[in-house]
Amino acid sequence: MSRFFSKKYEKLIPYTPGEQPKDQQYIKLNTNESPFPPSPKAQEMAKIEAEKLELYSDPECRDLVAAACAELGVGQDEILFTNGSDEILNFAFMAFCDEEHPAVFPDITYGFYSVFARLNGVPYTEIPLRDDFSVNADDYIGIGKNIFIANPNAPTGIALPLSDIERIVKSNPENVVVVDEAYVDFGGESAIGLIHKYDNLLVTQTFSKSRSMAGARLGFGVGASSIIRDLNTVKYSTNPYNVNRMTMAAGVGALADRDYFEQNCREIKKNRVWLTDELRRLGFSVLDSKTNFVFAAHGKVGGRELYLKLKENGILVRHFETERLKDYNRITIGSMEQMKALIDTVKKITEEKI
Amino acid sequence: MSRFFSKKYEKLIPYTPGEQPKDQQYIKLNTNESPFPPSPKAQEMAKIEAEKLELYSDPECRDLVAAACAELGVGQDEILFTNGSDEILNFAFMAFCDEEHPAVFPDITYGFYSVFARLNGVPYTEIPLRDDFSVNADDYIGIGKNIFIANPNAPTGIALPLSDIERIVKSNPENVVVVDEAYVDFGGESAIGLIHKYDNLLVTQTFSKSRSMAGARLGFGVGASSIIRDLNTVKYSTNPYNVNRMTMAAGVGALADRDYFEQNCREIKKNRVWLTDELRRLGFSVLDSKTNFVFAAHGKVGGRELYLKLKENGILVRHFETERLKDYNRITIGSMEQMKALIDTVKKITEEKI
Repeated sequence: MSRFFSKKYEKLIPYTPGEQPKDQQYIKLNTNESPFPPSPKAQEMAKIEAEKLELYSDPECRDLVAAACAELGVGQDEILFTNGSDEILNFAFMAFCDEEHPAVFPDITYGFYSVFARLNGVPYTEIPLRDDFSVNADDYIGIGKNIFIANPNAPTGIALPLSDIERIVKSNPENVVVVDEAYVDFGGESAIGLIHKYDNLLVTQTFSKSRSMAGARLGFGVGASSIIRDLNTVKYSTNPYNVNRMTMAAGVGALADRDYFEQNCREIKKNRVWLTDELRRLGFSVLDSKTNFVFAAHGKVGGRELYLKLKENGILVRHFETERLKDYNRITIGSMEQMKALIDTVKKITEEKI
Repeated sequence: MSRFFSKKYEKLIPYTPGEQPKDQQYIKLNTNESPFPPSPKAQEMAKIEAEKLELYSDPECRDLVAAACAELGVGQDEILFTNGSDEILNFAFMAFCDEEHPAVFPDITYGFYSVFARLNGVPYTEIPLRDDFSVNADDYIGIGKNIFIANPNAPTGIALPLSDIERIVKSNPENVVVVDEAYVDFGGESAIGLIHKYDNLLVTQTFSKSRSMAGARLGFGVGASSIIRDLNTVKYSTNPYNVNRMTMAAGVGALADRDYFEQNCREIKKNRVWLTDELRRLGFSVLDSKTNFVFAAHGKVGGRELYLKLKENGILVRHFETERLKDYNRITIGSMEQMKALIDTVKKITEEKI
């Protein structure tokens, strides 16, 4: 820390992204990336823009907004695109939370919520998940704080039914409920349909997972126009050209290629069923995932030990060394070839052959 | 404003980007874009990445950092890349300014500084430029506040000599001096060489102008490793993957193509000389620019009138309707063809033929 660093950040602990070692080629199952390349249409449109980078990107993202509105059934003033969904989540903390308007979220969820809260000086409460790692919706009914809820949740993969989300939104009319649907396309129920019914709901999604665009950085939020207007005030006071030309075009291309998107989601779900069955057969406890990852613990091999042995054998998974999570690993659903390589290696490890 | 919007932003007035009308094709001389496409190497490298967007970008931007360090003569822990230089400027306001550490900058400069100050609740003072629109370096000697200074300045185009920048940095050892060098490649003197001498200096630059990458969003800051560490704490608490894969690769390509970069800068400087002479011949007062734009006022045609008549005739320039600036327009230096079209139209307007 330099002597110039503001005291307001003394307690700030930055987010730790998944490791990206460059010492060898790994089978990367640690950051919930897609095993499939982006849609050929997305690639093609991004490449055309690469030739026109001398011109600023459209701060209003008009072409992308038009394409997304048609797909999602929302109005052009009800959506805002950002540099990944991390940016819209931070904007939501900035716009709606402060000393008088604290935040609440589960104790086990996307690790960035607590970082955003600290960054913005927002008091926050973490509500423990149940023993089975599920969110108890009743804990959030009429809680009177701004709620951040990942649905499906991470790193558990467990989804709440839409009826529970609606109960939470309905019972907190004086607070904003942010539903982070980063993984919704793999089996969750989206709350986007509720934005015309409740003006205190913000739904965020990302192109990183189901649309194979993690490296392009594209996310968005959907909500009542009054909420989106506030988020735009923050955006235009932060980085008006937050989405670059290539990513914007890739987003339009990805939305135009619905068949490719749906086929990839189906494939991930199929591989998830296969991997879950295989892991259970090997003695793992695997939570019921609606995402592109599973959260799994083995009765005999510790979470950290498994993570390290997999890494030694060229496979990366994500391990969290906290009390309630340390027996588990979060494993991204990849291609069937990757899943088979994982199971072969896990077999050897659990049979103590490695 | 929704009923949820935080009171802390009540006085926030967002930045207004240059207009991007889509009703017709304009000769765009209003946002200081380059008239030249990005380097073919930048295009080529970005296109390769468009095929790999399913993977997250490297949060440490290692390849880009290595290329830039070699070019700039700084260490890998002395540089940080961001989503445009707006992001690093905001990070600097976040990291180093607060209630107890106010900011100071000229009253006429990049309009985003005051927006960032308000966004972050930072008290700020604006010091008037001299009557000739130059910055008086003496105003900043030992001022004891964090200083934000665009050099060359915008929208005036006037540069301070490096010796003045050094005097300012040296006389404020307990404050951070941010030197925003967005336009330095067109004739200014960079302060990057001073970062090893002073640990309170942050120099920011962008690939938007001289490297024809406004639409890619790539900026960076260079400073002592202790300062860069603080800025990284903010980055990893905001958006760790802030630079996407395609932009990162384009940046590496642009840095590798030094001939192309230098040739374009020479061309802009040549066209600036030509345009300045022509405008003066037509009765304009033109400030002495070291940038890729000129700031010019005509004795007889008002600034707003000229802006509107140019727009009617398919040419966009940037007009600021404030008391000291309203007689002027900021005109981007484009290709010689664009400059000739501009002069032809200006001639007709000033001779009252339109």
